[in-house]
Amino acid sequence: MTDYKRQIEDCLNAISDLDLEAMKSASEYQATLAMPPGSLGMLLEIGVQLAGITGHIKNSIETKRIIVLCADNGVVEEGVSSAPKTVTAMQAVNMTRYLTGMSCLAKHFKSQVQVVDVGIETEYDCNLIVNRKICNGTKNISIEPAMSRQDAEKAIATGIELACQAKQEGVDIIGVGEMGIGNTTTSTAVLSALTGVEPSLITGRGGGITDDAFANKIKVIEKALSVNKPDPSDVIDVLSKVGGLDLAAMCGVFLGAAKNRIPVVIDGYISIVAALCAYRLSNTSVKYFIPSHKSEECGYNLAAKELGLNPFLQLNMRLGEGSGCPLAFQIVDAACAIMNTMATFNQASIDDSYLAEVRQEEAKKMES
Amino acid sequence: MTDYKRQIEDCLNAISDLDLEAMKSASEYQATLAMPPGSLGMLLEIGVQLAGITGHIKNSIETKRIIVLCADNGVVEEGVSSAPKTVTAMQAVNMTRYLTGMSCLAKHFKSQVQVVDVGIETEYDCNLIVNRKICNGTKNISIEPAMSRQDAEKAIATGIELACQAKQEGVDIIGVGEMGIGNTTTSTAVLSALTGVEPSLITGRGGGITDDAFANKIKVIEKALSVNKPDPSDVIDVLSKVGGLDLAAMCGVFLGAAKNRIPVVIDGYISIVAALCAYRLSNTSVKYFIPSHKSEECGYNLAAKELGLNPFLQLNMRLGEGSGCPLAFQIVDAACAIMNTMATFNQASIDDSYLAEVRQEEAKKMES
Repeated sequence: MTDYKRQIEDCLNAISDLDLEAMKSASEYQATLAMPPGSLGMLLEIGVQLAGITGHIKNSIETKRIIVLCADNGVVEEGVSSAPKTVTAMQAVNMTRYLTGMSCLAKHFKSQVQVVDVGIETEYDCNLIVNRKICNGTKNISIEPAMSRQDAEKAIATGIELACQAKQEGVDIIGVGEMGIGNTTTSTAVLSALTGVEPSLITGRGGGITDDAFANKIKVIEKALSVNKPDPSDVIDVLSKVGGLDLAAMCGVFLGAAKNRIPVVIDGYISIVAALCAYRLSNTSVKYFIPSHKSEECGYNLAAKELGLNPFLQLNMRLGEGSGCPLAFQIVDAACAIMNTMATFNQASIDDSYLAEVRQEEAKKMES
Repeated sequence: MTDYKRQIEDCLNAISDLDLEAMKSASEYQATLAMPPGSLGMLLEIGVQLAGITGHIKNSIETKRIIVLCADNGVVEEGVSSAPKTVTAMQAVNMTRYLTGMSCLAKHFKSQVQVVDVGIETEYDCNLIVNRKICNGTKNISIEPAMSRQDAEKAIATGIELACQAKQEGVDIIGVGEMGIGNTTTSTAVLSALTGVEPSLITGRGGGITDDAFANKIKVIEKALSVNKPDPSDVIDVLSKVGGLDLAAMCGVFLGAAKNRIPVVIDGYISIVAALCAYRLSNTSVKYFIPSHKSEECGYNLAAKELGLNPFLQLNMRLGEGSGCPLAFQIVDAACAIMNTMATFNQASIDDSYLAEVRQEEAKKMES
């Protein structure tokens, strides 16, 4: 067994269930808050989830970090993206300067941004990017496997390490973003491999391509799957054959967050495909995930359904980078504020006995 | 003509279209930002809308205010709500102490809360509530009109004045909330009257009621409509006969915000019914409205469809108070941050000529 493989195994074994006692206490506390029962919807659900993650009823997410995994994809030479590979490096650099969509939102909402190079091909000069380069981008998946199995394991292990580092540095919530021209192509190949759904049904236009390029993109993904024949039951095989270094490392961050009991926010399409990979490696890990926005990229819904998650922001966004994370952090923040500062019926000087009949009837309906 | 009626007429006449030049400039500026065209979805649309409202491409919403209109509803004596009338006054007081759901979110996200009594029946002792009481709650709409036409006009004029006051005090964005036991009943009566859709199709359970009380609620609304026969083409007639003082004043705030060119956020069900009233009085006013969350209360969707608005938060909330407003303010804030701090392709040192073909094809599709 390689060291990377052992690291992954150790992580998977260390992911444990949420604290059910704390979740029960959180629910019971919510029932005492001065409002119609359940009327704050998902803000209450997030409150219960956080209790299950941390073991405490009251939580706050002071230190927020978006971890952005950046890598290039060899498949770009097939014309699946209108943007050239050089944009990966340029935007990674721009993220460290808070100039991109995600990063200017992160700065505005006081979230850290950790930009990590796990496989950028183009040279750049920026010491604010964390160098965890595994190799100079992947191979062209329409011809051969993206990377060796060992490199995929190394990328996953790298993601796990980044989550462990976040834990050590007191991060309360992680967001998972990416930068990698061509990664909607690899994401769709991975999603298709894992679910068996045909590429033509789940391929989107990514950053924007012409009709001809779109038709070609579907063919390239189909070819990648038929050439490489990834094993759907073996996530690492899928990631190494038709995935990317960014996807594999993101999968590792999700797993590492679950291991370290840190809530972790999914961004858009690429992020949720990486989350699905993590879920397939550890079903328990999903309990630590929080969705953000419903991406416009058409495969998003399939991955969300597989994970059983409902994104609460519908902004028709499809930028990626992690841009949904700073927005979702605000909602999680709101969920914390409810638990931390809203009055109970008692504190609000309201006699809630009028709710007895309604509660009784609802309890009966729940039973039957 | 009464003074109130004149005030309303003056307001309606003063509501003018958005600044189309500024909106065009905002769109053109967005096309230069370093991202796939349009990929930030509704954040970009909000940015364009704000430009149309203020006349400036770059905006910020420093000073946020949630105006909460509070009033009692005589129809509560029909058993349409499980909560007693006294809760209206109690929660209005609690809002000034930042103890309720909406107000603790408002405090957390640094939004002002202005609690206004336009018709609370129960006595209370709290000088932080703005006293603009029109009368001690409405009459029982299942027997007689809620209020006189003049009182409805006075309530609308009061809302307009509150928006004008906000303008004078430098408020950059308004949210419209409410507190009034029984107001999902009056809102449904108003919505049914304005749209012709049967109450049974759009009545929800409000704060939570038993099955028997729910069946009764529908009958009460049906009776209110048959007894009072409101004129669907006359919004003030509808509000005075089957509405409430809160609804009428909220309608006024929406109109006053539009007049004063302040963006105004709709909360949940009651808020969107009031927004629909404003829209029916001035079709142009809707251009100043920003939706927030998709309320769980079942009439919400009908009102949103009538207004042509798509709420971007789906949190299964049904608390009211204005609780969606502080969350929506964060999204509007994000839209501003994009316009104010994101880099253009030029600043990001990216040559965007690779987008030429895609843009050309999209432009062609738009034309055809």
